[in-house]
Amino acid sequence: MPTADHAARRDALRSLVRTAGWDAMLVTDLLNVRYLTGFTGSNAALLVSASDTAAGEDGTVICTDGRYVTQVAGQVPDLRAVIDRAGPVRLLSDTPARRVGFESHVVSVDDHARWTERTDVELVRAARPVEELRVVKDESEVALLRQACGVADRALTSLIERGSLRPGRTEKEVGLELDHTMLGLGADGISFETIVATGANSAVPHHRPDATVLRHGDLLKLDFGAEVGGYHSDMTRTYVLGAAQEWQRELYELVARSQAAGRAALRPGAEVRAVDGAARAVIDEAGHGELFLHGLGHGVGLEIHEAPGIGATGTGTLLAGAAVTVEPGVYFSGRGGVRIEDTLIVREDEPELLTLTSKEFTVL
Amino acid sequence: MPTADHAARRDALRSLVRTAGWDAMLVTDLLNVRYLTGFTGSNAALLVSASDTAAGEDGTVICTDGRYVTQVAGQVPDLRAVIDRAGPVRLLSDTPARRVGFESHVVSVDDHARWTERTDVELVRAARPVEELRVVKDESEVALLRQACGVADRALTSLIERGSLRPGRTEKEVGLELDHTMLGLGADGISFETIVATGANSAVPHHRPDATVLRHGDLLKLDFGAEVGGYHSDMTRTYVLGAAQEWQRELYELVARSQAAGRAALRPGAEVRAVDGAARAVIDEAGHGELFLHGLGHGVGLEIHEAPGIGATGTGTLLAGAAVTVEPGVYFSGRGGVRIEDTLIVREDEPELLTLTSKEFTVL
Repeated sequence: MPTADHAARRDALRSLVRTAGWDAMLVTDLLNVRYLTGFTGSNAALLVSASDTAAGEDGTVICTDGRYVTQVAGQVPDLRAVIDRAGPVRLLSDTPARRVGFESHVVSVDDHARWTERTDVELVRAARPVEELRVVKDESEVALLRQACGVADRALTSLIERGSLRPGRTEKEVGLELDHTMLGLGADGISFETIVATGANSAVPHHRPDATVLRHGDLLKLDFGAEVGGYHSDMTRTYVLGAAQEWQRELYELVARSQAAGRAALRPGAEVRAVDGAARAVIDEAGHGELFLHGLGHGVGLEIHEAPGIGATGTGTLLAGAAVTVEPGVYFSGRGGVRIEDTLIVREDEPELLTLTSKEFTVL
Repeated sequence: MPTADHAARRDALRSLVRTAGWDAMLVTDLLNVRYLTGFTGSNAALLVSASDTAAGEDGTVICTDGRYVTQVAGQVPDLRAVIDRAGPVRLLSDTPARRVGFESHVVSVDDHARWTERTDVELVRAARPVEELRVVKDESEVALLRQACGVADRALTSLIERGSLRPGRTEKEVGLELDHTMLGLGADGISFETIVATGANSAVPHHRPDATVLRHGDLLKLDFGAEVGGYHSDMTRTYVLGAAQEWQRELYELVARSQAAGRAALRPGAEVRAVDGAARAVIDEAGHGELFLHGLGHGVGLEIHEAPGIGATGTGTLLAGAAVTVEPGVYFSGRGGVRIEDTLIVREDEPELLTLTSKEFTVL
């Protein structure tokens, strides 16, 4: 990723820090440090000085330990790096800043007490400023999300083509093969524990794959994703094995209409509650509202679940450039369930679909 | 795992809580909740009342949310469960306890502020009491560690038997096959990102597998583990491919002697610093002390790295029943390195070796 993107992100953070009236922001959440610098080591702290500019970042410093001397120089060539195990204390001791925002939603009570004892800066609780920036993805981030979604698409297509989703196999076998295929196609990791749920298990929203055998006539739900360069894809597809019964087809078409309504509601400025409502109304009208057991979707990026949440009790509106999932589901307990999920980017006109595997009703 | 084990662990925590003079302990770290109850959901808080006994735990309550109603009833049949999204606030509001210990090393500044505002108990910082208990493994835990180590042993043996560790393959291919094999043998997950490092890469202690091709005459270092029932194994083996040079054999024998010395020093009551020193002395005497770049080992259990740390600057002594790794390494930068690592249980007599794959010098 070009370092210019990271510099631009730090500059956006500086605007928030200046508006809040602080001299600097201490960032200790590792994903937030990665977002702002590109550094991927397991120990890091970053102090972003409000008085710096993108052209001159003398007061902005990253700190890590001796294991990462070479790595920090390679990944963060544009910032001064300090090597010290006690990163936050060192950065707070060295800086001329007096009022410093800190990430009070992740910093522990013990760490906060230690920093307060050992330094004389005024630490101010900051309400997730980096997470706020992370909602809107820049084009480097969208490119990685596209790659992650592409790996997941190709992996699923490949399993279907080689007949891996067939009666007689177990959920666990299918899940392992899907994971293995994504890793072989270039995923750096899997986004979360892959869900493979067949028959009655498909009615459990987050079923863990087990020894249940895929059978002719059953629903098969796959919810999975690939991680590429730190960014996560998230997709669910539901199929019928061998031959479909009428209730399965009707259930599928209902969820597909709901999912299309949810996608159509994705616009900059839309209330997240209204987006959830657009998809939920379709299922409500069919009389199954109480079987749609969860929110419609969530933001996705460096974390598999991040802001914004899209649910019936959510607050706030969508921003152009947000990456979100749309994933309604209807679950008949003991019988079977259908969920259909895409990852998309909210755009001024149509949302951009990143998970391109067909959502047509399919009997395998 | 029998619920009697969890009840015994809660009773051990009660002793610590009473000694500290608190009425109860609030546990919010999910691994600690799992350790004390067996519950594996992603949202949980546990209040352990000091005035309860193992025979009557009326004041001890677990709290989770609506997704886990069935699961908590199944996994924690022996405790009262409350269903509420705001777990800690609910537990602190309902309890008659006045002075309550909390896990200040993991609770965020924001959560602590919220709990303080919304309840009127006195929250007291507790210095990792559950982590302290977790150091000594009970027999249920040792059984899971044995299983995890057994899966890793069998996976490596299987790769060797089918000729998978051969020139021409890439590090990444070997790593994927090792992971896939462990999962196929019953691992619930892998312990950490598997390290496969060949040739000069073997001199990088934590090299990430890449497209480097295994070549005749090179060293091949594999550091990996399986997770079973939440417990992690950790093992490193180093081989030579095809034919060994004298320096490789000498380096291997040196590290093997160091590792044997480290294992021999594992005794209840031994200073962790002295255990590290016993292994380090062997390498120092050979003149390579500065090439042994890391500590000798670490505790292992529900986390891949947990207490006790075994290093040159470590403090404290070993306890009977602790699960630890012993993993010296010597790294010739640009040329190659050898590390040999086992997972063991500290016992009154000999330590119990859990990773049983041969450590003899082996040319594949």
